[in-house]
Order: sequence, then structure tokens, then C-alpha cells
Amino acid sequence: MTHTQAMPPAVAIEPLGTAVPSTVPTHWYNLAADLPEPVPPHLNPGTGEPLTPADLAPLFPMALIEQEVTTERYVEIPQAVREIYAGWRPSPLVRASRLERALGTKARIYYKYEGVSPVGSHKPNTAVPQAYYNALEGTTRLTTETGAGQWGASLSFAAALLGLTCEVWQVRASYDAKPYRRMQMETYGSVCHSSPSELTDAGRAMREAYPDTTGSLGMAISEAVEAAVKDPGAHYALGSVLNHVMLHQSVIGQEALVQLAEAGEKGADVVFGCAGGGSNLAGLTFPFLGQNLREGTTTRLVACEPAACPSLTQGEYRYDAGDVAGLTPLMKMYTLGKDFVPPSIHAGGLRYHGMSPMVSHAVHLGLMDAIAVEQDDAFAAGLLFARAEGIIPAPESTHAVAGAVAHARTAADGEVIVIGLSGNGVLDLPAYSAYL
Amino acid sequence: MTHTQAMPPAVAIEPLGTAVPSTVPTHWYNLAADLPEPVPPHLNPGTGEPLTPADLAPLFPMALIEQEVTTERYVEIPQAVREIYAGWRPSPLVRASRLERALGTKARIYYKYEGVSPVGSHKPNTAVPQAYYNALEGTTRLTTETGAGQWGASLSFAAALLGLTCEVWQVRASYDAKPYRRMQMETYGSVCHSSPSELTDAGRAMREAYPDTTGSLGMAISEAVEAAVKDPGAHYALGSVLNHVMLHQSVIGQEALVQLAEAGEKGADVVFGCAGGGSNLAGLTFPFLGQNLREGTTTRLVACEPAACPSLTQGEYRYDAGDVAGLTPLMKMYTLGKDFVPPSIHAGGLRYHGMSPMVSHAVHLGLMDAIAVEQDDAFAAGLLFARAEGIIPAPESTHAVAGAVAHARTAADGEVIVIGLSGNGVLDLPAYSAYL
Repeated sequence: MTHTQAMPPAVAIEPLGTAVPSTVPTHWYNLAADLPEPVPPHLNPGTGEPLTPADLAPLFPMALIEQEVTTERYVEIPQAVREIYAGWRPSPLVRASRLERALGTKARIYYKYEGVSPVGSHKPNTAVPQAYYNALEGTTRLTTETGAGQWGASLSFAAALLGLTCEVWQVRASYDAKPYRRMQMETYGSVCHSSPSELTDAGRAMREAYPDTTGSLGMAISEAVEAAVKDPGAHYALGSVLNHVMLHQSVIGQEALVQLAEAGEKGADVVFGCAGGGSNLAGLTFPFLGQNLREGTTTRLVACEPAACPSLTQGEYRYDAGDVAGLTPLMKMYTLGKDFVPPSIHAGGLRYHGMSPMVSHAVHLGLMDAIAVEQDDAFAAGLLFARAEGIIPAPESTHAVAGAVAHARTAADGEVIVIGLSGNGVLDLPAYSAYL
Repeated sequence: MTHTQAMPPAVAIEPLGTAVPSTVPTHWYNLAADLPEPVPPHLNPGTGEPLTPADLAPLFPMALIEQEVTTERYVEIPQAVREIYAGWRPSPLVRASRLERALGTKARIYYKYEGVSPVGSHKPNTAVPQAYYNALEGTTRLTTETGAGQWGASLSFAAALLGLTCEVWQVRASYDAKPYRRMQMETYGSVCHSSPSELTDAGRAMREAYPDTTGSLGMAISEAVEAAVKDPGAHYALGSVLNHVMLHQSVIGQEALVQLAEAGEKGADVVFGCAGGGSNLAGLTFPFLGQNLREGTTTRLVACEPAACPSLTQGEYRYDAGDVAGLTPLMKMYTLGKDFVPPSIHAGGLRYHGMSPMVSHAVHLGLMDAIAVEQDDAFAAGLLFARAEGIIPAPESTHAVAGAVAHARTAADGEVIVIGLSGNGVLDLPAYSAYL
């Protein structure tokens, strides 16, 4: 039985007493404390009323439900989580000197690189605390869905370290086309199913109705939610969109602010992040935005989304469901409609019909800009970056690179640009190969 | 034309003036300065006499030829190289607290993790200076061979940053079975050929004699060497075995010594590294060995090689050629014979008939121990490590993990164990999948 974990949660959640550098943040930063208007609440899809903690209790541990609604500016990071963060945090903020030279720009370009995490992206920043709070409250099993596989791999990593079992429903098309991600989850001890599966009512119904379906993220969410609700020892975990995920990712931007100061910069003029569900974008930009709101700095924040799935630049700002089946809470967000099926682009992590309510709110209030990037422009920028800086960006991250590169070509002398490099593209090399 | 580099070497080799942390070593350490007996010289395969610099000039720049024979204890690292190193160095030395707990050991286990480099292994530590010295001396094109693909990808990375073109002959079986590594090289701008190819005399002869051959490292070396010799602007690069490669890798062990002291340790009791050609092993252990020789410390150093390719534990210590065709210098080393064909194990980077002459010399003098590890034991240890520490080790590195795990189970209270984790296994997940 290779899939079970050897260590009981009761031991796994205790701090180990290992040294944690003081440069690993001690608190998560919560933008809700500094916004001029509160983020609209999530609604119960049955009643249309604001969600109560009891509505979410079947899915999430109470600590995460509290973090979903808190307006405290800082939330303390548990020491056991900081110890795991210390394995790769603080992530590097690197001056992109070769890229600057290749562009002939007079701007100073930095990138904040999350690809140093054990699974190669920013996702473990929230996977670890989500697994931690679940283990703390007695959950023994986590369920989730995954599209491209980054989130499923990250939650598998966190579950392994915190003594939980983890079950992932991976969209069938991705399950078939990206076997490395499944193998990564299994190596960490998780079980990975092709979705729709025979294991849930939702999956069986979908398979009966559409035997040849390639699956969808909406269907995989339904399966993972159903599995969690039916097992009293299980909870569900989501890798983006929700407020507590944005909170956890704030370590990125907090570190970047400190690292810019250490590099002798007074701050950033403009920050580019890619936007799918919004978590890496929020993680990098919200600490800068909070500084704008509290201290009057004027750092411009730019969400870079794929032209093929342009929720922020083409969507409506309204309440919508997070999944196709409408099982999730209703959230106020920029959305292309829950039934929107984006074309099959390489940046699988950006194919979401909606957008984090907190990011949507910030854009709606005019606190953040958004641009849409064509796939070819994204890959051209990714290739330029890879050959100049030596790091192959994830297809998602190339959208932020493209935004920054276009800006840098005409930037003012001495302008400071920060790129959110949310992950590396080592498991996405076929996408580059297709572009070449 | 996507394969050419945009930047001329004359600009690429100048330091950029970026900040380099003081924790990035300023010098490489050379064990030759501290050995009680000199390392036997390489011999000219034609004359049987010690090699002269002129013998090597068609293949390597003069700076590397000098480093191959120097007995200076410290060689200064060029600032342009340190700036690139700073992208991922110092690599982390991590206390493996969860692994300790899983093992119930009273030892303190640390791992030195080279998988944070842009290509996920220790190979860029030497690829960067090799590309640098070539660019400095006017080389415009590098040729090399690659088996599993780690070295080809690393040299491609370094060539891209230093403005060189790079051409890689990848063993046909690996070229066909591991397309991600080829895509990685191409993304960095290199050209990758399946070997044997139609592009060289050696390749054409091999294809004519054995049309269905799956290729071999020895044949790929012959093709890369021939291509370099025929082009006055080209040089050849080798990723292991040679003395200058061991020199460059010494940054690993130098950092580890400092990091152990920072962690409050007086030193290490035992260090485990995996051994193929010897470069990551030497890089980690030689600085410890130098300290043993100079200061009388007694750190035990253990080379962990695969039972399927046991050059140190089963081979003869004698002069042998580095390749099948006998084109390379003769080197005094532990060897299974240049015609030995190891079985097809997952740890492709350890399938070499010989061993670094410096490592061989150290083992011969009794300064270093060697053990052979069965593949199943290696993967069992790798899986245990992945689920405890969250990092999936490269198949090569699992041999060092297995050595350390076996030792830790019966270690004395407070013993300090260091594991050389030479790379991650993200592009080797099918090997784990096969084991599971």
C-alpha cells in the first residue's frame, strides 16, 4: 500500500524547532483591512443570502472560514507553516540585468521567482497552510480538483508533509495529456482520478450523459466537493479565487517590498502579474496596493490575462457561481459566465471563467489595471526571458513577462518594473516546443 | 531562425554589476593542493606520454586546460560567473527534520540541495564557467554529448546566457524516450541531434554499421569531439570526470561547510554523495576532505554508486579511455573497461564505465569510501525522502539518500549526516511511476 502516509497528523503539525530565517514573513497581509469599500460577501447559492460559517463548515476547517471573512490587517503565520515555507522562502527577487540589456531599456527590471518551490510554482504558499489547518482540526483526508496539475501536485506535497491523505480529480483531458503531473501527485502519496470518474454521483451522471467528454474543471470541482461532503473526516481545498487563498499568497509581495528596499530601490513603479483565478497576482500586488492605500505611494499594478479568457477586460462584474454545476457559493466577480468554455491554450492555469472577488473588487474600484495578452506574444516574451535570464517561465507567467517587456521598451529612465514569475515551465516544455 | 543567440559574447561576458551575496564563494577549492600524493596525469592516447596543453587546445580554452593541471589550492571565480551563480547560490543546506522523525534516528541529517538551479541539478556549476572561459577566449560555438539530458540542458542554459551557440548530440535512445530534455535545450536556443547522426564521419560510420543502434554515450562523445575539432570557432565541453569540472563543483562543499557552522554544527561526521562520473560527489566532499587533510578532522566521505555500474567497488584502478572509440585522453581511474555496457537503469547520470581520476585517486588512497546501492533500495529511499521532505530527488541522488538512510537507522546519538542531493526528479517522474 504505497498511497498511505506513515505519519499521524498529531505529530506532523507540531513545529519541529528548525531555524526559520527572519526574512520569512511572520504574518500574512490582508488587503481587506485597507480597502476603501468592503469586498462584497459571498452568497449562499440556495438562499441568495450572505454565507454563514455553517454553510462552509462541511468543506473547510473553521480557521480558514474565519480567514475568508476577516478584516484584520495581519494574520499570524503558524510556526509549523513558517518552517515549511523556509524550505524555499523567501523566494528570490532577481534583477533581470540580461533581459534589460537584450531590450535596451533604461528601466530596472526585477522578477520575483516562485518557481523555486518543491513543485515549481506559487501554489504551495496556500497548500501548506490549508493542509495545516485541516490537520490541526482533525481532518484526515483532503479532496480537490486540478486542471493543469500544478494545484493538485502542490496540495499533494503539503498533504504528505502534514500527514494527510489527498485525493485529486484531474480533468480527463489533462490527466491523459500530462502524465508527469499525475506521477508527481502519486510520488507524494496522493491518489489521482481522471474526471469525470465512476466514484461520485456527479461523475457517473456526467459519464452517462457524455461518454466521450474530455472533462472540465467545473465537473472535477463537483466530484471533489461531493467526495468531501460525503466523508465526515474529509475536507475540500481550493487553490485560488477565495479570500483566504489571496491572504496566504501575500508572502510573495511582502518579501518583494523588503527585497526591493534591500536592493536600494525606493519601491516599484509598476508590477505585472498574470491572472487566472487571481492568487499569484494578489499575492504579489496586494502588499504594494496596501502601501498605496495607507501611505499614498503610487505603484501601478497590472493584471495580465490571456486574450483567450479575458474575464477582467471583457467580463461582467456581477455575482456568479464558481463552478459549472453551481455548487459553490455565489461570488461577486468579473466573469465570462460560468458556462464559458475557454479555448485550449497552453496556459492551463489561466483558463477560468471568473476571477478572485478581491482582485475583481480592486479592479472595479480602479485600484488595479488589467490587460489581455495574446498567446503568441506571451511565448515570444517567455522565450526571450528564458534565453536572457536562464529560467524558462511557466506558460502562465509568460503573460506577466509579456506585459513587462512591452512596457519596458518605452519605459522612462530609471523606472522600476517588477514581474511576478509565478512558476517555471519545466513540465510545460511541449508548449514551448509547439511555439518554436 | 529561433536557434541563434541575440547577444554577442563580447558583451555577455562582462560583469553586469549586479549584487552578489558574500555567501557565494569567491574561489573554487582544488583538492590537488592538499593530497598526500599527486593525481596521476592524463596520458596522450597516441604516445602514452603525459598530455601537453597543446594536446588539449583543439578541445578546450587555455584557462580550462590550466585548471585541469593546477595544484593551486584556490582559483578565483570570475565576477561574471559569480553573478550567474548568485541566481541560485548558495544552494540551501536543509535540516531533514521530517526524515529524521520518519526514521526515528538520533542523528541530525542535513541535505545540500542543488535542484534549485534553473535546470534542476548541480551541472550548471561547471557549465557556466566552461561557457564563460570559452566566450572569453573567442569561442562562438560549443559542442557536447548528453545521455539523460541534464548536462546538455545545463550547457545550453550557460551558452544562452554567455552568448554562445550550442550543439548537443543526445544518445538516440534518450533522445527518443526523453523529449522534455531536448525541448529544454531547444528552448534555450541550442540545437539537439539524435546520435548517431548523419552530421559527422563517426555518426555516419556508426549508422552504416549498425542501422538500428540506440546509440551510446561513447558514440555521442565522438560526434561532439569531431564537430569541435573540425570547426576553428568551436570547442568541446565535458560535464564530469575531468579535474577542472571537480574544481568548479567545489562551490557545493565550501558552502556546506559554512552553512553547517551557521547551523551550529562543528562539522559533519559522514557525507554521502552519489557517484557516476564523480562531479557532484567531488564538489560536495572535496572541501571536507581538504579539511581532513589540512586540519585533522575525521569526516567520513562515502561515494554511493549503483550496483548495476559499480566502477569504484568492482572496477580496476588503471589507465583507461574515457570513451568507447578511445578518442579521449587516457585517465588513471577505477573502470569497468571502456567497452562495459551498463544495464539500462533509471539513474542515467550514473551509467559511466569509469570515474573521475581525482575521486578514484582519493578512494585508492583510502581517503574516501565507496558503497554500491541496489536500484530498488535507492527508489525506496527516494520515496521516503519525497514524502517526508517534500522534494522528489533525482534518481541519481536517491543513491546518496539510500546510503544515508541505511546509516542513520543505527547512527549514534547526535551524529551529523550530510546528504548530497544533486538534483530533483521532476523530469524523471516516469522512473518513480515505474517503481510504484
